Amino acid sequence: MEMIELIERKQAGLALTQAEIYDMIRAYTKGDIPDYQMSAFLMAVYFQGMTFEEASYLTQAVAESGDQIDLSAIAGVKVDKHSTGGVGDTTTLVLAPLVASLGVPVAKMSGRGLGHTGGTIDKLEAIPGFHTEISTETFVDLVNANQVALMGQTGNLTPADKKLYALRDVTGTVQSIPLIASSIMSKKIAAGADAIVLDVKVGDGAFMKTIEDARTLAETMVQIGEQLNRRTLAVISSMEQPLGFAIGNALEVKEAIATLRGEGPPDLTELTLTLGAQMLIASGKVQSMDEGIALLQAQIQNGQAIERFKTFISNQGGDASVVDQPERLAEAAHKLPVKAQKAGKVAAWHAHLVGEAARLVGAGRLVITDEIDPAVGITLERKVGDSVEEGDVLAYLHVNDQDPTRALALLEEAVELSQEATAPPLIIETIH
Amino acid sequence: MEMIELIERKQAGLALTQAEIYDMIRAYTKGDIPDYQMSAFLMAVYFQGMTFEEASYLTQAVAESGDQIDLSAIAGVKVDKHSTGGVGDTTTLVLAPLVASLGVPVAKMSGRGLGHTGGTIDKLEAIPGFHTEISTETFVDLVNANQVALMGQTGNLTPADKKLYALRDVTGTVQSIPLIASSIMSKKIAAGADAIVLDVKVGDGAFMKTIEDARTLAETMVQIGEQLNRRTLAVISSMEQPLGFAIGNALEVKEAIATLRGEGPPDLTELTLTLGAQMLIASGKVQSMDEGIALLQAQIQNGQAIERFKTFISNQGGDASVVDQPERLAEAAHKLPVKAQKAGKVAAWHAHLVGEAARLVGAGRLVITDEIDPAVGITLERKVGDSVEEGDVLAYLHVNDQDPTRALALLEEAVELSQEATAPPLIIETIH
Repeated sequence: MEMIELIERKQAGLALTQAEIYDMIRAYTKGDIPDYQMSAFLMAVYFQGMTFEEASYLTQAVAESGDQIDLSAIAGVKVDKHSTGGVGDTTTLVLAPLVASLGVPVAKMSGRGLGHTGGTIDKLEAIPGFHTEISTETFVDLVNANQVALMGQTGNLTPADKKLYALRDVTGTVQSIPLIASSIMSKKIAAGADAIVLDVKVGDGAFMKTIEDARTLAETMVQIGEQLNRRTLAVISSMEQPLGFAIGNALEVKEAIATLRGEGPPDLTELTLTLGAQMLIASGKVQSMDEGIALLQAQIQNGQAIERFKTFISNQGGDASVVDQPERLAEAAHKLPVKAQKAGKVAAWHAHLVGEAARLVGAGRLVITDEIDPAVGITLERKVGDSVEEGDVLAYLHVNDQDPTRALALLEEAVELSQEATAPPLIIETIH
Repeated sequence: MEMIELIERKQAGLALTQAEIYDMIRAYTKGDIPDYQMSAFLMAVYFQGMTFEEASYLTQAVAESGDQIDLSAIAGVKVDKHSTGGVGDTTTLVLAPLVASLGVPVAKMSGRGLGHTGGTIDKLEAIPGFHTEISTETFVDLVNANQVALMGQTGNLTPADKKLYALRDVTGTVQSIPLIASSIMSKKIAAGADAIVLDVKVGDGAFMKTIEDARTLAETMVQIGEQLNRRTLAVISSMEQPLGFAIGNALEVKEAIATLRGEGPPDLTELTLTLGAQMLIASGKVQSMDEGIALLQAQIQNGQAIERFKTFISNQGGDASVVDQPERLAEAAHKLPVKAQKAGKVAAWHAHLVGEAARLVGAGRLVITDEIDPAVGITLERKVGDSVEEGDVLAYLHVNDQDPTRALALLEEAVELSQEATAPPLIIETIH
């Protein structure tokens, strides 16, 4: 196999074979294919796409490029949930204990990552004492005992993805749906997932800007999952405005606690129940969405969901008393209001501007060395479709000693008021 | 300017500005833009193309990336002629003395290059003593005195083109018409051409396989020339079968001598007169093709063309007596016939197979270190449309000690006989 031939085949819109894709990824990971050939190939993929088969071969090849986590010591179907990323996405914090409380194992590996807020690990570390530096044995034991544990990513997982992503980032080839899909799926598969539930976000605060692109990405990932014998389901959800009310690490933990008590924001609750039901279907626990949602609602009502959250926290060294006394979580020194300049209805809360404001005050990272302040962030007091009077508080910016000027200006810019407005649908489509 | 932005703009089908293209080529030549970004950009150009303006900016930027030959010491309009490459293309050997004999300066710089036969330098070096290692001063003096000289390429001409071409060659981005056009034109402009005549070949033995592609390439180069104030004319000519009868270095010199005497193959004569007339138009010597062709035919009839060839040869150390005694040129030890297996007409002489056969016996180079044997090659005894009886000789393979087996097989494969066949038109289109 000569790389030039593979480039030319893709350029002509032809499909590559499994052996060709495996050989290519193996050779590229080893450094036997130079970056300048791979970037030409990736640009050809950008223009010509990939078949579902090709995307699944690529996914498997990338998954096998480094260490693969063996979760076979954990009983049951290990369902992983992945979000393509949005602003104020607190679903994982709620889903992990909620689904686990029904006996379905949630064995989650997570990285820290970059973004408007920290990742799941950063958020949970807002709880005093909580840590994810546990051994694989402890991880397996905890999941077998209580169906839930969270571990920081260890080992050399998907090195081909790291190398490909770094190259795509500087060659204009990030925005290729089969490449995005196989990057996401390869990491889930290397991390040991038996089944996968995907939350594909679309809109202003999401990576996918149009419903068509979001649908294509979701369908591509579901097809990859099917090809690789991983039951895969997906939700396409709106990310025009932030999800829930809270954006920020400790703020989102508080919101997760409220949601696990049945007192969370309606949109976060709806999305959590939908994704949770898909996780139950993927695990084989239930057959239908309605059945899954009913079971999950019962766990919230009967208190087992919140109890499992406490167990999860204590298991990993955290102070579970924050669940009953959320005021013990870090709180910012200042709560600065953003007020309505006129009466009307909230027509938009542009999610990417809200996210940017949160990151600016220290809730998230631009580069991996940035420090996160768990206390800071934003709480929305009104969401799209809500009525306001002039002078009403639309949101609070939570800051400590950070300069709030630019973040406040972004929040002013992020909100739009008009005479009439209705909340957009949250769940646009489910694929299962 | 960030390279990633230029990649993304081209990816989106947008045009780059002159400043962006200049900066990009300057930075790439210096090594400040990595190959992996340039190859992604080139692949985006492959898919999205370039406007004529962009292609002309690229041409100028590449022309200025290294040394530029200053031919201002030569009186008159310096017209360069370029062929996109074919099999048995003896036109330059005929055109140089023919056009020079009318007082139009032909100041030709040439490389050795790779191909079925050698380049113009290799062909002329089949004449004993002829050499092209002359100083720029001698070169200028010879052209001023006799309007014709040939010099090996010196200096650091178009380093950006060398770097880009090497990258395109391994990244599947050779076949992009604006890139091909600007590569050709940048070299002509750096070599000091005031005006350019292009022979764009199309067909089995050419780089362009379809008339549409050949026309687009020709039009792109003519447009680039216009943008850069170089009068540029083009011929689109058929390269389904080899041009003329001879393929090989000494063999083509003999054919050039015959053509300069008015005894050459009809197709070579026709193409030479057409290109020559365009050179006369480009130089301002004549206004019309008919006028140019008549002048050129007169130079052949009155013997001034062949005399100028003798002067050209002697000026550069060659033995001009070969012109009157062509048998003094190197001749191969063996002339192996390829015979007709049946009666009929020649329906095809697939040029790329004939070319490959010539290269295999040592007429050309695959890599720059390959030795050329000036004596070897192929002479066609019949061309497309000619009638043959069973057993008639269709071609001779001229070899010394080379193994002829594979070349003979290729020649057998190259020729097709059928009941009816007519010669295809040679000149498909002229653009001026």
